Amino acid sequence: MDYNKLALELHEKNKGKIEVISKVEVKCREDLSTAYTPGVAEPCRKIRDDKSEVYRYTAKGNLVAVVTDGTAVLGLGDIGPEAAMPVMEGKSILFKAFGGVDAFPICLDTKDTEEIIKTVRYLAPGFGGINLEDISAPRCFEIERRLKEELDIPVFHDDQHGTAIVVSAGIINALKVVGKKIGEVKTVINGAGSAGISICKLLLSIGMKDIILVDKNGALAEGEEWMNDAQKMMAQVTNPENKRGNLKDIMEGRDVFIGVSAPGIVTSQMVASMAEEPIVFAMANPTPEIMPDEAKEGGARIIATGRSDFPNQINNVLVFPGIFRGALDAKATDITEEMKIAAAYAIAGIIKEEELTEEYIIPGAFDERVAKAVAEAVKQKAVEQGVVK
Amino acid sequence: MDYNKLALELHEKNKGKIEVISKVEVKCREDLSTAYTPGVAEPCRKIRDDKSEVYRYTAKGNLVAVVTDGTAVLGLGDIGPEAAMPVMEGKSILFKAFGGVDAFPICLDTKDTEEIIKTVRYLAPGFGGINLEDISAPRCFEIERRLKEELDIPVFHDDQHGTAIVVSAGIINALKVVGKKIGEVKTVINGAGSAGISICKLLLSIGMKDIILVDKNGALAEGEEWMNDAQKMMAQVTNPENKRGNLKDIMEGRDVFIGVSAPGIVTSQMVASMAEEPIVFAMANPTPEIMPDEAKEGGARIIATGRSDFPNQINNVLVFPGIFRGALDAKATDITEEMKIAAAYAIAGIIKEEELTEEYIIPGAFDERVAKAVAEAVKQKAVEQGVVK
Repeated sequence: MDYNKLALELHEKNKGKIEVISKVEVKCREDLSTAYTPGVAEPCRKIRDDKSEVYRYTAKGNLVAVVTDGTAVLGLGDIGPEAAMPVMEGKSILFKAFGGVDAFPICLDTKDTEEIIKTVRYLAPGFGGINLEDISAPRCFEIERRLKEELDIPVFHDDQHGTAIVVSAGIINALKVVGKKIGEVKTVINGAGSAGISICKLLLSIGMKDIILVDKNGALAEGEEWMNDAQKMMAQVTNPENKRGNLKDIMEGRDVFIGVSAPGIVTSQMVASMAEEPIVFAMANPTPEIMPDEAKEGGARIIATGRSDFPNQINNVLVFPGIFRGALDAKATDITEEMKIAAAYAIAGIIKEEELTEEYIIPGAFDERVAKAVAEAVKQKAVEQGVVK
Repeated sequence: MDYNKLALELHEKNKGKIEVISKVEVKCREDLSTAYTPGVAEPCRKIRDDKSEVYRYTAKGNLVAVVTDGTAVLGLGDIGPEAAMPVMEGKSILFKAFGGVDAFPICLDTKDTEEIIKTVRYLAPGFGGINLEDISAPRCFEIERRLKEELDIPVFHDDQHGTAIVVSAGIINALKVVGKKIGEVKTVINGAGSAGISICKLLLSIGMKDIILVDKNGALAEGEEWMNDAQKMMAQVTNPENKRGNLKDIMEGRDVFIGVSAPGIVTSQMVASMAEEPIVFAMANPTPEIMPDEAKEGGARIIATGRSDFPNQINNVLVFPGIFRGALDAKATDITEEMKIAAAYAIAGIIKEEELTEEYIIPGAFDERVAKAVAEAVKQKAVEQGVVK
């Protein structure tokens, strides 16, 4: 199918994808006097007197801003805030379809870290949560860190954590299929940008011990000169034997390959050099690091990609609607590491042990159980941790 | 009816009033691939290559931000951005119900003029227009002026211009009923804040020549020491005989009284001191400067208020949905003085000369012809003036 052509037609015909509608009727004078003046003054007064009442009388508690500066959109890079709109609208409608969340695109005409932080802070009174989207590294780290500190509503950079959570869910189930323990496997992550680092951190959090991150310059290892600050920090908590070398060298003997890098850079020979029953998550989009048939030739036991036309699609639509649904329902003030871990286990847990196969380690994008299970797990964890209003 | 109680119930039951929904289906993998990845990349590329295509492929062209800092909300004053939410949501649903405009509340956690200007500028890529709302004077003047200059989308401060337009429409029709000419009548406007000044300016634009603005300190007149900058400028173009005095003094012999001030400050004696067949627009809310029955006692021929339970309600819901509908349809880059005048005449023109009576000079809030007529007039004027993309 020519999705490019279909997408242009769909977007032009509908003039975009989102619409803002009323939940209440405005058909007569009484409606007007209740939803607007003079009646509306009463909820205003209640909130003026007690700010927390904003959750009772307004839409804030279900509104999420999908905030971008358009600098790292899909594989297209820095295309600007206007060109980012179709993706942010797309994200918004998925929030609604999968999580019942009212999400709204905020496409910012500034790339300045401090200005973005300040703008989001100014916007926060009207929103129950902030989803950061397609903001390039390293600014995205600082922006998320600061906003989490400064705001009392949940802030979540989906490109980092959404991917990390669904990858972790996939790894949890893949390891069950091959019968290996998470604390014992050796993993290589190719791509040491924001997604790779975030995946690495979450895998460490769920008990993985031996991970090597590889960049285009080679393995992240203590003492390497070319690493940026984020990579230097990762080198301290990964690569326990401080191995050096390129991707080909590092892949040898590893149990798990996770690619968030570039098309076609892994060969079937490289897969063949891995440990027994290798797990290959090749998530470069739209063309994976290695195509599934080649990975199979190399002996891969389990293969996942970012694509919907192969089994085991790693799709963060499995994550963000449920994460925010749960966080909003709990009136959470943050999305903690523990809430992310709970989300990963909730996604993995959708598939019963006896249903797990090489080609079914991750639920499908339209599995309605997922968002509900994620929301429930995230809400419970937020309440348990006491990070709620 | 107890609208306070009804309003609380309505707002709590529905958790506010707005909802963000999808205009397209997301029910299967093909939907996902067209509305989101991979297809969505194609409209992104088109807009990256030609920014104006954002109007073709996104919702921008129908999205209006309803921006406030919560400093001048209804009669409640500076109640903060959270407490302003119910009003901004209310405004948003009226935009949709009356103008088919997708409006979204933006409640800002800053009162700093420069920060508000910058924030709105940063937000602009995703919006087709900016409706400023309930921002206190004098900051609202500077904010609107600067944003009109700096942005290429229409910016409109409804508290000033919405009221001015509907008052002007009412005056146009009231003068027809009493058979007086706009260039010959003497008018007093009580209340020389943003609404009063804006009404005065538009009445001057449509040909009124003798207007005196009165503040709590008395008539605005050249040489008065107590006036602020905006009032000094107005003193130069009003009060041709440079009269001094309080409201009671000034009202004597005037044909038209327009109040945007405080409850109960006009007596029937004061109305009786006006010229023959006086026109009284008493718009303080919820209690007018003079109640209609008292004004009648004083001999008022035509009475208008801000209330829906008396005839001739001055309600700016007659204005903003149509103004923005027309401006968006025209892809207008501004809302000019001429477009506002066109809107005023369009509203006045809804009522045919033979239908005009003392109690029917303004169409009702639910008259469906109004927004259409305003939109058409505004669009035509924008095209005629060439202030379109």
